[in-house]
Amino acid sequence: MSAPRVLERCDELARRSEAEGMITRWYGSRSLLQAADVVAGWMEDAGLAVRRDAVGNVVGRIGGPGREGTFVLGSHIDTVLDAGRYDGPLGVLVAIEAADDVGRDLPFALEVVAFADEEGGRFPLTYLGSRGWAGLLTADDGAVTDSDGTPLADAVRAMGGDPERLGERSAPADLLGYLEVHIEQGPVLQDEDLPVGVVTAIAAQSRGVVVFQGMAGHAGNTPMRLRRDALAGAAELVLEIERLAQATEGLTATVGRIHNEPNVGNVIAGLTRLTYDVRHQDGALRDRARDGIEAAARAIADRRRLEVEWQPRDDLPAVPMSPRLRRRLVGACELAGSRALEVGSGAGHDAVTASSLTPEVAMLFVRCKDGISHNPDESVQTEDVAAALDVVTRFLTLGDPNPRSERKGR
Amino acid sequence: MSAPRVLERCDELARRSEAEGMITRWYGSRSLLQAADVVAGWMEDAGLAVRRDAVGNVVGRIGGPGREGTFVLGSHIDTVLDAGRYDGPLGVLVAIEAADDVGRDLPFALEVVAFADEEGGRFPLTYLGSRGWAGLLTADDGAVTDSDGTPLADAVRAMGGDPERLGERSAPADLLGYLEVHIEQGPVLQDEDLPVGVVTAIAAQSRGVVVFQGMAGHAGNTPMRLRRDALAGAAELVLEIERLAQATEGLTATVGRIHNEPNVGNVIAGLTRLTYDVRHQDGALRDRARDGIEAAARAIADRRRLEVEWQPRDDLPAVPMSPRLRRRLVGACELAGSRALEVGSGAGHDAVTASSLTPEVAMLFVRCKDGISHNPDESVQTEDVAAALDVVTRFLTLGDPNPRSERKGR
Repeated sequence: MSAPRVLERCDELARRSEAEGMITRWYGSRSLLQAADVVAGWMEDAGLAVRRDAVGNVVGRIGGPGREGTFVLGSHIDTVLDAGRYDGPLGVLVAIEAADDVGRDLPFALEVVAFADEEGGRFPLTYLGSRGWAGLLTADDGAVTDSDGTPLADAVRAMGGDPERLGERSAPADLLGYLEVHIEQGPVLQDEDLPVGVVTAIAAQSRGVVVFQGMAGHAGNTPMRLRRDALAGAAELVLEIERLAQATEGLTATVGRIHNEPNVGNVIAGLTRLTYDVRHQDGALRDRARDGIEAAARAIADRRRLEVEWQPRDDLPAVPMSPRLRRRLVGACELAGSRALEVGSGAGHDAVTASSLTPEVAMLFVRCKDGISHNPDESVQTEDVAAALDVVTRFLTLGDPNPRSERKGR
Repeated sequence: MSAPRVLERCDELARRSEAEGMITRWYGSRSLLQAADVVAGWMEDAGLAVRRDAVGNVVGRIGGPGREGTFVLGSHIDTVLDAGRYDGPLGVLVAIEAADDVGRDLPFALEVVAFADEEGGRFPLTYLGSRGWAGLLTADDGAVTDSDGTPLADAVRAMGGDPERLGERSAPADLLGYLEVHIEQGPVLQDEDLPVGVVTAIAAQSRGVVVFQGMAGHAGNTPMRLRRDALAGAAELVLEIERLAQATEGLTATVGRIHNEPNVGNVIAGLTRLTYDVRHQDGALRDRARDGIEAAARAIADRRRLEVEWQPRDDLPAVPMSPRLRRRLVGACELAGSRALEVGSGAGHDAVTASSLTPEVAMLFVRCKDGISHNPDESVQTEDVAAALDVVTRFLTLGDPNPRSERKGR
């Protein structure tokens, strides 16, 4: 069980990139194919039998057949533009290490999956890798194009996949459950001084855009009482969104993007567009917050004589983690000597796709420095990776993760 | 006295542009030289003796010599990028029309100046035209370059000027006073349903930038209590600036420009930069407001654990208009049958430069639709131009605008 080796391998993968001086691996790129080949080699070194599925995911299997089912450990090896080295790869490499350590001795088969695309940096298909694995794509998806007009089918071939078989599920038919290790992408574990955390659920999320239209005017010659300042209306909404979130335990609500016109120092803003992003583990509380933001936007516009456009984009449901596997992870943390903190995931992960195949889905978060992700400054500590490895191997060996077994009282 | 002709000539000048489909005339351009030639022709048609000064301003003179002094009517003929047709030219064309009507019969000489650059769209020199006219440039200024590296001296030559004589004053030595007619660039006259307004002063103005630095983070995985959201801090300052201005009669305070990083919907803002622009007729009240904004910015940063940078750019003093000429304009308005509203100018004008030569400076604003300026939608009504012409000719003929005469009790 080697945490340093996991980190060395993260460094090794970081050298596979489409752009000099940064880490960028998108679906269908040469660097992602190289990364997939390297990962496949490490799987083989760990004694896993490796296959590639139709979308180019790398799947390694150990134990079985003849056992009572297959448990899957997965994460992704693609990255965003100018990424860090841990978001995705860390989960795959911890999984390979755990499989190497205990995969031969389990009462079930273990599969490790390196998904070929989770970030969706190139094609407008979310969770492309895991959706292919889960059998949720169709051959028709091969016609989807990237911003250059290249069809997905070409990129699938570049990954060694087969666009004709995009609809073929490669997830095991006897799937017992799914566990994903991932950096937290938030500061809670650091704030609590804990190496790992057990995920309760992937939050329900709403995203959209609010546009305020006012009247541009000369900053020196338009008295305050005659103004219809779109930016001032937007500023009020930014603060109202913050206030709403602070008033609801567990809610996050964010304005991350603002666009202002004409955006000139001596001209009153005529139009301001801002995004909202609202998340909560409880879909009903998320709904209430989103509706509260809409009501606030309309009230602000009325009071300020602005026009307002409310443009919802996404309303994604919450994905609860399996209570049984959460309990098992909590037990594993305690055996490993770490306080078992349960935390929500505000971000989506391949576990969302896995949950469409089985409710037996779990995630383990690993502390990352200052919560930084999607950034070259992503950083994890060796001790924390060691703790994650310890927890995962205990999770796998603590008892049979087959839900049917538990029902039998074993 | 022909208001329609003034508007036709504004349309004619609007056809002189550097760019198809928009009005753009910057200093040293072919279109500005053409505009200057056209204006010189109209001056000659009105019986004015035309000269060009060293910076390329067009000066027309009527009446005198041998009279007791020279009164000047001026404005500019350059424009911003994608401009309207009235900001600048209206004042020049009203002046030519007034000179044509009454210039021969005045007890003083009248000069009309078409300044070659007020907007400063090309060279980093404010009021280039009127500063040349006032003798406030030096031959060394010819070395100042535009963004392409072209020296001002080349542009001066292109305007028919002489860079060697840039320091030569062309304003008359016997200057009695200066009057400028200009569109209001604000909505007050429209709101009060008045064609024209008498300017009290050009406001003191402070401009600068405030930068808030926080900590970027994942919108889903960073709890509200652990955030250092730069955009939320900026939003608070936008509203505080608005509140300060609303609390002080005659103050305008504006955030026109905002820049946010990384400006991505699912990332908490790490850095937000915003401009402030504060103006008041009373420099002391302007100072107090500017200092209040700085204090608010620092308090917000403290409370939100943000870094703040306060970057002042300009602190320009107020320029009061001549009380004597204001009274004369008010009298002329009343004779013309219009209520004489006195209004502040939030914007700077060539009158600022003229005030360096004489305290006898005045401005008359003309109503413009919705206060729109620096925009193709700039619009003025024929009746309002007729009212302005009426006021200017009455102003000139109401009595001798020579301050020495008034002191003599004439």
